Amino acid sequence: MIDAISFSNDTLHYLDQRYLLLREEYVSTKSHQEAIEAIKTLAVRGAPLIGVAAAYTIILGINSFKGSKEEFPLFFKTLIADVEASRPTAVNLFFASARLKQVYDDNFATDTIDVLFAKMNEAAKKIHLDEIANCDLMSRHGVDQIKIDLADILKKRKLNVLTHCNTGTLACCGTGSALGVIRLAWQEGLIERVITSESRPLLQGLRLTAWELQHDGIPFVSISDSSSAFLMQRGMIDFGIVGADRIAANGDTANKIGTCAHAISAYHHNLPFYIAAPVSTIDITIPDGTHIPIEERNADELRTIFGTQVAMPDTPVLNYAFDVTPGKFLRGIITDKKAVVGNYVEELKTLFGQ
Amino acid sequence: MIDAISFSNDTLHYLDQRYLLLREEYVSTKSHQEAIEAIKTLAVRGAPLIGVAAAYTIILGINSFKGSKEEFPLFFKTLIADVEASRPTAVNLFFASARLKQVYDDNFATDTIDVLFAKMNEAAKKIHLDEIANCDLMSRHGVDQIKIDLADILKKRKLNVLTHCNTGTLACCGTGSALGVIRLAWQEGLIERVITSESRPLLQGLRLTAWELQHDGIPFVSISDSSSAFLMQRGMIDFGIVGADRIAANGDTANKIGTCAHAISAYHHNLPFYIAAPVSTIDITIPDGTHIPIEERNADELRTIFGTQVAMPDTPVLNYAFDVTPGKFLRGIITDKKAVVGNYVEELKTLFGQ
Repeated sequence: MIDAISFSNDTLHYLDQRYLLLREEYVSTKSHQEAIEAIKTLAVRGAPLIGVAAAYTIILGINSFKGSKEEFPLFFKTLIADVEASRPTAVNLFFASARLKQVYDDNFATDTIDVLFAKMNEAAKKIHLDEIANCDLMSRHGVDQIKIDLADILKKRKLNVLTHCNTGTLACCGTGSALGVIRLAWQEGLIERVITSESRPLLQGLRLTAWELQHDGIPFVSISDSSSAFLMQRGMIDFGIVGADRIAANGDTANKIGTCAHAISAYHHNLPFYIAAPVSTIDITIPDGTHIPIEERNADELRTIFGTQVAMPDTPVLNYAFDVTPGKFLRGIITDKKAVVGNYVEELKTLFGQ
Repeated sequence: MIDAISFSNDTLHYLDQRYLLLREEYVSTKSHQEAIEAIKTLAVRGAPLIGVAAAYTIILGINSFKGSKEEFPLFFKTLIADVEASRPTAVNLFFASARLKQVYDDNFATDTIDVLFAKMNEAAKKIHLDEIANCDLMSRHGVDQIKIDLADILKKRKLNVLTHCNTGTLACCGTGSALGVIRLAWQEGLIERVITSESRPLLQGLRLTAWELQHDGIPFVSISDSSSAFLMQRGMIDFGIVGADRIAANGDTANKIGTCAHAISAYHHNLPFYIAAPVSTIDITIPDGTHIPIEERNADELRTIFGTQVAMPDTPVLNYAFDVTPGKFLRGIITDKKAVVGNYVEELKTLFGQ
């Protein structure tokens, strides 16, 4: 499999996903500014991968630090602020920066700079390895839940599953969140075909998910985002599963724009619709989705496609990168700890020992 | 305004809408085969315009006829079959061919070929003029219905309206069906802003509707198709109005893929969603939407955009050009005769004197 992100010899290596898979460009950088730019421009994307990239970006930043120990706190504060300003919606980014801040808070007073940096390096590596392990855990919990919820259909035939955007290796380091669940379900013989919606404007479904599925030999078909309701009406979709960029305490979920429309349609057709996301995606500090900042991106993402102008250059555009799906439309939230179903307000708390 | 279609000196003139408005190409042809190809490739598109184009295409066909009167029936039958095979979903096409067949049936026995052809010419011209007049009638009925349904909001502020695909001058010859209603509502001071969804795969909303609205100075913003549910959730859309390619006797409506998803989201958010279409779009002979043939178009419409490859060339694609919106999600069907609300099975019949 492709290695979407890695870190070795104080260098961040990543695959530029913007033009994938028409152009496969690996980038290596020791510059944290370059790494921040890669997150901003979606060269690196996918909520868990953004978390990992943020952690390594902070490591690149501290590696560039040449001052005295007394000067480090201000430098570190600025560095964290710059990294956190790169993408507002995916909470994994803030989860990663919080983990490294914690290492700093716990050790700065007692450690030398070198020992502190080594501990931060370890913490960043741990975030990366955890995300890989999380994929396997989510896959298991997800498949178990699907076997329960769709038992009646599974007695008769395999399932057709809708997914949106890309939540695979390219987004998550491991086998994926939603796509990890789909992969394991396929391996266990539960899946007839994957329906992958293209995910305008940047076509992550049409480009990236299609490529991952083709690589694994899993049967699939790509559709325009707005086709899903009709396919559900025609009985061509049995359930949906997608990833998440941030989940509020009540289950409201920010994810790639288009998720909410898929979920509402699934709800109206009585089809289960799941979120698969590591616990690091859950922001238990916010009560509901209205508190999630929704990134509005450049109008040219709609007006030009791969450099080709498709609309008048002055066409006014509203380009929200994410939407919020109310928890009530979700059959379950599949995490690395367990599949959460039922009352999200009560159940999500338990993941945090509350 | 642009003249999307006209007929003079035995020649069909049309605007090639495929690359509009990046490239403005007018085509003139005396060949009915070329005209059929223009309908097939969507160089000419929009349900009412397809009807007009079909009528003129039949005229081009009969103009090319060089045989004797005895040979005409077979020629005419083949011609009609060729024209009717060009697009399966839009019923306006079949409505146009039926009108010309009627002229043939009523006059063939008694008229000379020349007189018969002159009568058919008149009938084609009449179809064209009727569509132009229909737009004004739909606009009036539509605005009157909106004033009733959205009276409470209108006491406080102007309205934000969602539309999909292109239903304006470019699609309907006159001011448009759904876009005609929006134009009149704007003129009467009811509209704050139009939200136009891009309409993948061929981007008629992003290209054509945007261009028409900009031309008229009506404030608008373009969005990706899958954004509408989120905008409704945020209170940024007050109602939706779209066109139709075929309406069944129970109000089930085939229209551009994505309509059904918009309508379900509107229904869920308690927002009125309307169809605006001339009576010629209603197929009273079919009881419901399951009887409407849904055109499946070439996979490359998704895989390439304006000639730019955006996905792997062998990516499997399911590309339905239309979907069917169940009548229950529609607040009303705005026709040239009246705004039909309530029980569609009963009300639509009355338009046909049944």
